[in-house]
Amino acid sequence: MSGPTHPWVVGVDLGGSNLRVAVYRELAAAAATARAAGAPLAQEPAAVVRRPVGEDRRVDVIVARIVDAVAEVLGAVGVSRVAVVPVGVGIAAMLADRRGTVANSPHLGWRGVGFGPLLSRRLGPARPVGVYNDVNAIGFGEFGVGAGAGARDLLCVYVGTGIGGAVVVNGVLAEGATNCAGEIGHVKVAWGDTAAPCNCGGRGCVEAYVGGAYVLARIRRELAAGARSLAVDLAGGDPAAVHPGHVDAAAAEGDPWALALWTELAPLFAVALGNAITLLNPDRVVLGGGMFGRTPTLRDQALVALSMVTPPALLDPVDIVMAALGDDAGLVGSALLADGGVSLI
Amino acid sequence: MSGPTHPWVVGVDLGGSNLRVAVYRELAAAAATARAAGAPLAQEPAAVVRRPVGEDRRVDVIVARIVDAVAEVLGAVGVSRVAVVPVGVGIAAMLADRRGTVANSPHLGWRGVGFGPLLSRRLGPARPVGVYNDVNAIGFGEFGVGAGAGARDLLCVYVGTGIGGAVVVNGVLAEGATNCAGEIGHVKVAWGDTAAPCNCGGRGCVEAYVGGAYVLARIRRELAAGARSLAVDLAGGDPAAVHPGHVDAAAAEGDPWALALWTELAPLFAVALGNAITLLNPDRVVLGGGMFGRTPTLRDQALVALSMVTPPALLDPVDIVMAALGDDAGLVGSALLADGGVSLI
Repeated sequence: MSGPTHPWVVGVDLGGSNLRVAVYRELAAAAATARAAGAPLAQEPAAVVRRPVGEDRRVDVIVARIVDAVAEVLGAVGVSRVAVVPVGVGIAAMLADRRGTVANSPHLGWRGVGFGPLLSRRLGPARPVGVYNDVNAIGFGEFGVGAGAGARDLLCVYVGTGIGGAVVVNGVLAEGATNCAGEIGHVKVAWGDTAAPCNCGGRGCVEAYVGGAYVLARIRRELAAGARSLAVDLAGGDPAAVHPGHVDAAAAEGDPWALALWTELAPLFAVALGNAITLLNPDRVVLGGGMFGRTPTLRDQALVALSMVTPPALLDPVDIVMAALGDDAGLVGSALLADGGVSLI
Repeated sequence: MSGPTHPWVVGVDLGGSNLRVAVYRELAAAAATARAAGAPLAQEPAAVVRRPVGEDRRVDVIVARIVDAVAEVLGAVGVSRVAVVPVGVGIAAMLADRRGTVANSPHLGWRGVGFGPLLSRRLGPARPVGVYNDVNAIGFGEFGVGAGAGARDLLCVYVGTGIGGAVVVNGVLAEGATNCAGEIGHVKVAWGDTAAPCNCGGRGCVEAYVGGAYVLARIRRELAAGARSLAVDLAGGDPAAVHPGHVDAAAAEGDPWALALWTELAPLFAVALGNAITLLNPDRVVLGGGMFGRTPTLRDQALVALSMVTPPALLDPVDIVMAALGDDAGLVGSALLADGGVSLI
């Protein structure tokens, strides 16, 4: 990270349900310590507010809520109104540029919204703002003070209801031409008419096979169509209650249907991950997200398959680790990016 | 590019057959002009030598040849022995680090050779050395003063006998943990026992389908097995003389066998390229290499297929252009990298 850093820095996590705003003290120094140690150094915010995003999602209403919350956390720690405090915002949205223009946010109902410039005007010159894709912010948090600390070239992949990612090259976040870099969930692992449809409008995306929402839908569909599995017993006998964690436990017990499903999905994730490793030659890969946390058998199968689809010269130098920061990764990552002067508006 | 730049800088292209050494004047200024114009600005070297690598490929012999050639080109332009002149070397090899350790170079017969440190010692302190993968150097040359000039996030893909690539993120070459970034030729477009074997030892690499040597072998194999094609007539009636250019011309004429082959291969290349675009969100893609130059029909089919396997939000911002610098790209790219202080030993 280059450029001046600041004693106080704010991270904002603007999700589909909740708005969180946190202020951190001496975050750059903590990141330097974590980098030197090559180990996570989880950061507690000096002050934090968390509130619902609210029903009214007009951009000026949301911006006003953020401005209020920023003032509140900075007031709580006694920071002057004129002190320069960078504000990094991670947002669950597809961005259109590095100035916080939101191309599309289904959660917020925004399309083509000039969120960043408006927020910047309302926060004023003492609060330089950067707006980042939420998964990019999470990945940069892990890079700064989490499981990626000490890495130089990092690939993060999060498997939750969908699949997202973040790429760090030479210690710098890859944002891309329109701030959409890291979309590993939409790399294709199948193509043609039989490839699985994805909510993105495409077909064959790895997310459409291994993303939690798609896996859950497939489980329900196959069980409703008569598939028999130990997973139903593990879910208390109700096929409609089976979730991927039950299937994972059933696969670990040798249940044929569960094993067949995992054996189909594991190589697809492995190909997407292995191809990204082949292209980027990272020294570390961080895996996270709610899905893999509940499906360790699937995760382990994917890592075995990885060795079959990745050249040894590229797989050998990689440490593959699990994310360390939990729900705060995006807050701390946004704060670190803004503190480092990345794409300030 | 950051750091001081130099009035004179040397680029070295150490290939399997030829050694080329060129000295450029005010290259950084030319790159700044090209970047501002967003257009290629081909550079003539102020002096250049070209000679066979020679039969004796011991590392100290090759290093001595390079040292002699560097002295020769600098003498030709009257540069003093004490003036600091960076020397960038692009080498046809798999590197092991950013210090020019060669993990494997089949062309030179080197495995685990400390080429960079030895060259650095022999050239002395006035000639700081950087060693780069040859395709990375070519890509960075296109980025600096070629078809990639003015881009910020660039993906280069070269389809020759094999397939190689280079990735530039935020204006900086992605070298990766062991200086192997950009190996797009070895991303998998098929997996399992039926996937095509690749010379890398893996299976299903896009190179094993679309790389020129593999395409040629397949053409010869299918024609020898009795396939009938206009391509044979175009090659003068001899099936053993058919090359991919003949097949491309036959496909353009509607020859069924040629069309079927190209229709199989085009989507495989498109998937590899589209997935890299999805991961990196580049603003420009440069395509080059001898194969695509002779197979415009295949190239155009691949670009049509690209739109079916790449999310529009990631494909729309990309300009896809053909390489502009020809054989000098690696020389000028190595020189630019060294001039910018990238991975000097």
